[in-house]
Amino acid sequence: MTLLDGKKTAADIKSEIALEVIELKNKGKKTPHLAAVIVGNDGASLTYVNAKVKACDRVGFESTLIRLPETVTEEDLLNEINILNIDTDIDGFIVQLPLPKHIDEQKILMAVHPDKDVDGFHPTNVGKLTLNLPTFISATPFGILELLERYNVETVGKHVVVIGRSNIVGRPMSILLSQKRTKGNATVTLAHSRTQNLKELTLQADIIVAAIGIPEFLKADMVKDGVTIVDVGITRIADSRKKNGYRLAGDVHFESVAKKAAFITPVPGGVGPMTIAMLLKNTLLSVKRKNS
Amino acid sequence: MTLLDGKKTAADIKSEIALEVIELKNKGKKTPHLAAVIVGNDGASLTYVNAKVKACDRVGFESTLIRLPETVTEEDLLNEINILNIDTDIDGFIVQLPLPKHIDEQKILMAVHPDKDVDGFHPTNVGKLTLNLPTFISATPFGILELLERYNVETVGKHVVVIGRSNIVGRPMSILLSQKRTKGNATVTLAHSRTQNLKELTLQADIIVAAIGIPEFLKADMVKDGVTIVDVGITRIADSRKKNGYRLAGDVHFESVAKKAAFITPVPGGVGPMTIAMLLKNTLLSVKRKNS
Repeated sequence: MTLLDGKKTAADIKSEIALEVIELKNKGKKTPHLAAVIVGNDGASLTYVNAKVKACDRVGFESTLIRLPETVTEEDLLNEINILNIDTDIDGFIVQLPLPKHIDEQKILMAVHPDKDVDGFHPTNVGKLTLNLPTFISATPFGILELLERYNVETVGKHVVVIGRSNIVGRPMSILLSQKRTKGNATVTLAHSRTQNLKELTLQADIIVAAIGIPEFLKADMVKDGVTIVDVGITRIADSRKKNGYRLAGDVHFESVAKKAAFITPVPGGVGPMTIAMLLKNTLLSVKRKNS
Repeated sequence: MTLLDGKKTAADIKSEIALEVIELKNKGKKTPHLAAVIVGNDGASLTYVNAKVKACDRVGFESTLIRLPETVTEEDLLNEINILNIDTDIDGFIVQLPLPKHIDEQKILMAVHPDKDVDGFHPTNVGKLTLNLPTFISATPFGILELLERYNVETVGKHVVVIGRSNIVGRPMSILLSQKRTKGNATVTLAHSRTQNLKELTLQADIIVAAIGIPEFLKADMVKDGVTIVDVGITRIADSRKKNGYRLAGDVHFESVAKKAAFITPVPGGVGPMTIAMLLKNTLLSVKRKNS
């Protein structure tokens, strides 16, 4: 069994990006600049957005964090977005989700210019992904492709079962893996809450992407020997033996499934750490596009 | 076995649209207006685009056919598109494909304003489809959904195998049928040229959408009893017994598969006739959006 080590891979990618930034600077090009907009004071969101800013520092990017109060109007938020859209120094920006209920999230995501939408959430970028045109692939699916690539997991002609049809993971993953691309050309089945006979499907799968958000849902009796497992789930489970009172669990019962797997992502340390690395990669891609 | 009769269903839809046009006119609203741009003199394309114009007449739409010479420059074609984009009387328009080789097809499709893109080919509309947001669903997948709807074919929890991953049929079909929608919530497997063990998959399928363009590819031994078959293929096959020297064949060996099927589309007269009806429906939808 080989561990698909997202922590190590993400560190590798960040090192590569840092080198590219130095090269850009040596060539007299501008420093990549990522901006993040966050509304309100949600602890988890703040932690996550701060990690993104910190990652920018580490690879030599400039970063800008724009904090807006929980009470900001939709109009004012749209104005902020428009300022970022026209600011030529900003290569890419993200709006940290979720947003307060009085703001129409879809309207906000639609307002981000597709050329700066490094989260890949704008319909135009999602459409380009679907059509297999160059675009910003959103961080989680992009990170999974990168892990499969760096560990030489074969996907061509393999049967992939993606569990979960969310717009940010399951859906794009199912599309990408079935396209003509290096880590693609797989036969993909997309399963979800309305799927019957799931176990029958997962038992046929060469690769399983679990993205349902139910801790330890996928058990050893549901997979065949030699399977590759990508676990996107991450849930806190109460655990009195832990100092902080909880442990993190994925959608896969790691202990038992790992014994049958050829490749498997751990949780934590698998898909999670890859997301920020891929956000940085998209920002660098945005700079390269402008330079080319 | 029930025939999914596209010819009859398309006629029904056109009648419904004609009634809606009369209602619009009675309310003093404008008449829906579809434009089509065709470049060059390809016989099949001219036949098809003329059929679209004729269908407009029948349901009471206005139509405009813009014919450009094979030698038109990309720039001039883009200008034509821009005129249509800003013409407030035009509710929707299409650019008949294929285009001559000196014109970048993707660039042309990108130039059509998404709000007038009744073919649903613009990345923004494809992205909205992928995200399950309101959009123009392109004619063939839209027609298939409509057939399944009108014949009450159950899709929820069913296993659908889509064969073929083209951007205009297989891909959108696989997405739509797996989404939360009336004719959706199916478990969908997308198979294609790199798929191994296809027969193993089709034998599991409750519904098969065949869109590969290989005549009579799907045979009776590849399907289970009670299957629903949607045949998107249409190929001319030499046939000396026919007056015109050919017959039309789908991707399904109809004669043998029909015996096992619960529902099946014939070729011709199945999916084909639905496409023009759905193009008209999208044009009407464009008018309604503006009125609302």
